[in-house]
Amino acid sequence: MPTAIELAEQFQASLVGETSLRFDSLAPLEQAQANQISFLSNPHYRQQAADSSAGGLIVSPADLEFLQGHPNSVDSQRVYFVAKNPYVTFARMAQHFAKMSSPTYAAGIHPNAVVDPSAIIPVSCHIGPFVHIGPKVVLGERTVIVGSSSIGEKSVLASDCLVYPNVSIYADTHIGERCIIHSGAVIGADGFGFAPDVSARGLEWVKIPQTGGVTIGDDVEIGASTTIDRGAMSNTIIGSGTKIDNQVQIAHNVSVGQACVIAGCAAISGSTKIGNFCIIGGAANFAGHLTIADRTTVSGNTSIIRSITEPGQHYTGVYPSMLHKAWEKNAAILRGLDKIRQRLRFIDRDRDL
Amino acid sequence: MPTAIELAEQFQASLVGETSLRFDSLAPLEQAQANQISFLSNPHYRQQAADSSAGGLIVSPADLEFLQGHPNSVDSQRVYFVAKNPYVTFARMAQHFAKMSSPTYAAGIHPNAVVDPSAIIPVSCHIGPFVHIGPKVVLGERTVIVGSSSIGEKSVLASDCLVYPNVSIYADTHIGERCIIHSGAVIGADGFGFAPDVSARGLEWVKIPQTGGVTIGDDVEIGASTTIDRGAMSNTIIGSGTKIDNQVQIAHNVSVGQACVIAGCAAISGSTKIGNFCIIGGAANFAGHLTIADRTTVSGNTSIIRSITEPGQHYTGVYPSMLHKAWEKNAAILRGLDKIRQRLRFIDRDRDL
Amino acid sequence: MPTAIELAEQFQASLVGETSLRFDSLAPLEQAQANQISFLSNPHYRQQAADSSAGGLIVSPADLEFLQGHPNSVDSQRVYFVAKNPYVTFARMAQHFAKMSSPTYAAGIHPNAVVDPSAIIPVSCHIGPFVHIGPKVVLGERTVIVGSSSIGEKSVLASDCLVYPNVSIYADTHIGERCIIHSGAVIGADGFGFAPDVSARGLEWVKIPQTGGVTIGDDVEIGASTTIDRGAMSNTIIGSGTKIDNQVQIAHNVSVGQACVIAGCAAISGSTKIGNFCIIGGAANFAGHLTIADRTTVSGNTSIIRSITEPGQHYTGVYPSMLHKAWEKNAAILRGLDKIRQRLRFIDRDRDL
Repeated sequence: MPTAIELAEQFQASLVGETSLRFDSLAPLEQAQANQISFLSNPHYRQQAADSSAGGLIVSPADLEFLQGHPNSVDSQRVYFVAKNPYVTFARMAQHFAKMSSPTYAAGIHPNAVVDPSAIIPVSCHIGPFVHIGPKVVLGERTVIVGSSSIGEKSVLASDCLVYPNVSIYADTHIGERCIIHSGAVIGADGFGFAPDVSARGLEWVKIPQTGGVTIGDDVEIGASTTIDRGAMSNTIIGSGTKIDNQVQIAHNVSVGQACVIAGCAAISGSTKIGNFCIIGGAANFAGHLTIADRTTVSGNTSIIRSITEPGQHYTGVYPSMLHKAWEKNAAILRGLDKIRQRLRFIDRDRDL
Repeated sequence: MPTAIELAEQFQASLVGETSLRFDSLAPLEQAQANQISFLSNPHYRQQAADSSAGGLIVSPADLEFLQGHPNSVDSQRVYFVAKNPYVTFARMAQHFAKMSSPTYAAGIHPNAVVDPSAIIPVSCHIGPFVHIGPKVVLGERTVIVGSSSIGEKSVLASDCLVYPNVSIYADTHIGERCIIHSGAVIGADGFGFAPDVSARGLEWVKIPQTGGVTIGDDVEIGASTTIDRGAMSNTIIGSGTKIDNQVQIAHNVSVGQACVIAGCAAISGSTKIGNFCIIGGAANFAGHLTIADRTTVSGNTSIIRSITEPGQHYTGVYPSMLHKAWEKNAAILRGLDKIRQRLRFIDRDRDL
Repeated sequence: MPTAIELAEQFQASLVGETSLRFDSLAPLEQAQANQISFLSNPHYRQQAADSSAGGLIVSPADLEFLQGHPNSVDSQRVYFVAKNPYVTFARMAQHFAKMSSPTYAAGIHPNAVVDPSAIIPVSCHIGPFVHIGPKVVLGERTVIVGSSSIGEKSVLASDCLVYPNVSIYADTHIGERCIIHSGAVIGADGFGFAPDVSARGLEWVKIPQTGGVTIGDDVEIGASTTIDRGAMSNTIIGSGTKIDNQVQIAHNVSVGQACVIAGCAAISGSTKIGNFCIIGGAANFAGHLTIADRTTVSGNTSIIRSITEPGQHYTGVYPSMLHKAWEKNAAILRGLDKIRQRLRFIDRDRDL
C-alpha cells in the first residue's frame, strides 16, 4: 500500500497532512473510509466532501480553502492531495490502484486458438481460447486478445491493445497503439451501399463492394457492440485519442477527428466528417455527407441534418417530453403549425390597417 | 396430449364444455384449429374470437357471456377456459406446451469448452462448445451456457439460468436465479468515463477505471445485443423480475428497479435511477443522474431529460411525423417559434390598449 | 487485367475511346488514376468528373455530352463506358473487380468446428473454426460460415450464403439463397412478450413463449449487430431482396416486404407490416401493429406511430436542431404550445366581433 507522500509525488499533487498514511483504494465521497481516497471536482459537492469519511481527498486549491474552514473537515485526520485538475489526478491515481488488482494476461497463445501461420504475433502477446487470427495479421508487442474474437486477413493491431471477448475485426483493419475494444464490437463490416436497378424483374438493390478498410488511431476506446463499417473505396477513419461508447454506429467513409467523445447509441451516417475535440451525446445522430466543425458539442438525442461550420458551438434538438395527455394535444397542433403562423400573419396585417 | 379438464385444473381456470377434449398446442385466433387453444384478452377481438375455429378458448367471464350469446360460437363444440386474466393464463399454458417441444440441454461440460479449474460448476449444468469460463466463476444448479460465451473471473450465475450463444459476461458480474440472457448481450463492459486533461499535447481523455461490477436480480431477461456496463466504483443494478428487450444500453451506475419492462433500443445514461414497475417504450432514452418514480410509463422514442418525482405518470415526447413537404415547412417555423410567441405577446398587449 | 472493350461488352455499356486500355480497379473521382475506372451518376459532380485523372469513366449519355464539350476532358485519353444507369454499371463492375481480390473460402469443415451428425452440410460448404452447428441444420451448396458462429437446431441456410464471424442463428430460422449476414447479427432470439400478473407477490411479468420462427427470403443482407426476433406463434418475415444495415432491431411477428432498404439503427416494433420497396432512414422507428404501404420513404430519425395507407409517400418527423440556447427557449414554448393556439383563437374571435 502506497503512502500519501509517495502518491503525491507520483501524481504531482501537493500534499497537505500526514505523509505516512497508507491507502489501498479509491471510493466515492459517500462511501470512502479512512484507508481510501476520494475526490472533489465539482464545488456543488463541497458539503458532501466535508462530511466524507475519506482518509484522503483530491481537491483544487479553492476547494481546499473551503474545506479547511469547514468544521467537519477540521476535526478529521484527512490528508489533501491538491491538484489543478482533481478529476484528472483522480483518474490517473485510480488507474494506478486498478492496475494492482486487474487481471493479468500471461504471454502466450492458448492451445484452443487458431492462428494462421502467416500471422505475426510477438511472444509478448496473449491470445486466449477460441481466438481466430487470419492470414498476414500483424500484432504489436503485448497486445492481448482475451478470447473468442476473430481478426481478419491483413489486419493490424499495434502494441498494447486490449481486445475483450467476442469482437469481430474484419480484414484490412488498422488499429493503433493502446486501443481498448469491448465485447461485441464489429469493425470493418461492409458499409451499406447499394445501387437501385429497375429491370423487368422489378426493383433490385445491387451491392456496391466495400473495398476500403478502417483506420483507427492510437489510444482509441471502442465500446461494447459498437459497429464501425469499412469504407466503400477509401477508408473509414477514427482519430487518435477518440473514445466511443457502446452501441455506436459509424457508417462507411465517416471520418472522426482526434480526441472526440461519442456517447452510447450515437450514429454517424456515411461520409460525414466530424472534426477534432467534438463531444457527441448519447443517441445523437448525423445525416450523411456532413462536415462538423472542431469542438462542436451535440446534445444527446439530437439529430444533425446540416453541416456545422462554426467551431465550438453547442447544438441541441431534443423534443421536450410532457405528460402523455399534454403531448397528444401539442402533437396535433404541431402538425398544423404553419396554419398558426399564417393566422398570425393575417391578424398582424389586419391589425396594421 | 392433455385433456381440457387436466389443463383447467393445472391452470386454475373454470372449464365450460366437454372435459375430455385433447389439445396439442396454442395458436392465434385466426389460425387455431380444433386441436388448439387460443385466447381472448382484448374485447376488441370478440368478433374474431367468435369466428375462430379454435377448439379451446381462454376467456374472461365477461367475454364468455358475449361469446355464448353469439351465433358463430353457439354452433361450435368449443370449450372455454374461464380465467380472471386470460392473457396470463394463456402465457402459463403456453409455457407448459412449449416446454414439451423445446430443446433440452444435457448436463455436462462439452470437450470443446475451456473451464478454469478454480470455477465451480455443478454437475447439473450444461456447458456447450467454445464456452470460456474464467477463474473463480460460480454457477448455480442446472444453469445452461449454450455455447460460444465467455464468463469472466469471479462472476456468478445462480441456478436455472439460460445463456444463449455469443454472450460476453465480464468479471465481477452477479446474476440471480432463472435469468435468461440472449445472444450478443454484453454485461459488465467498462462504463464510459473519462476526465478531460488539457496539456501541452492538447486535449486528452484520461480513462476512469471502472472498478464496480454489475448486480442482476432473479427472473431477469436480457435481450439480444443489450449492453449493461459495470459501475465506475459502485455497481450497476438491475432489479428482480425486470425484462429487458434487444439492443438496450444501460450505462454505468444505473439502477433499474423491480419488475420493469424496457423495450428495444432504449438507453439509460449513467447513474440514472429507475423506480419499480416502470414501463419504458422502445428507443426511449434517459439523460444521466436522473431519478424516475415508481410506475412511470415512458412512451417509445421519448427522451427524458429531467427527473420524474410523481409515481404512476405517463410521459411522451414523440415529435409527430408528417409528409416530408409539410415537415420542411414546420421545421423552419419551429426554429423561430420564440418569434411567434413574441409576436403574439405584442399583438396581445397592443389589443389590450 | 481486363481491357476496356472486354469490360464494355461484359457490362453492356457503349465504349467511347481506345478499346485496348487495361484497368485494374475502380476508384472515386478525386483519387482515380489512369489504370482505374470511376463513375459519374450525379450531374452535380460533372466538374469533378471533368477534372478527374481516371483512365475510364462510367457515364450517362447526357453527362458524356457535357464532358466531351469540356476542355479538361478533351485533353485526356480517357475512355467512356456509356450506360443508362451508371451507378448500377459501376456496382456490377466493382463486384467483378472485388471478386478477383476478395478472400476465397476453401470447401471443408475446420477441425475446430463442432457439427451435429444429423446436420446436412454439402461438401462445397466452408465451415470455419469455432462454428457450432446444431441438430438437423440444413445448409445449401457453397454456403460459407466463416467462423465462431452458432446455428441452432433445424435452421436452414440455402445455397451461396455468407455468414461472417460471431453470428447467432437460433433454432427454426429459414434463410434463403445468397444472403449475407454480418458479424454480431442475432436472428431468432425470443420476441419481447410478457403478460402482467398482479398477485400477492406484486407485479410479475409472465413470459409468453416465442414459438414462431424467422423466415428470410433470397438475396437479403443483414448488417452487423442487427437483431431479428422470432415470432410469438407465427413467423417474423423478411422479404427477398431486402437490405438491412447495422444495429437494426426487428421485433417479433414483423413482416418486411421485398426489396426494402433499412438503414442503421432503425427499429420496427412487434407485428408491424412494412410493404415492398420501402426506404427507411437511419434511426427511424415504428410503433407496433402498424401497416405501412408499398414504396413508403421514411426519413432518418423519424418515429412512425400510425399506419400509412397511401403508397409512395415520404414521411419525416425530425425535430430541428438549433443552438443550445435557442433550443432551451423553444422547448419551453413547445410545452405550452396549446396555450399559444388558445390565445390566438381568443384574439381571432375578439377581432371578429
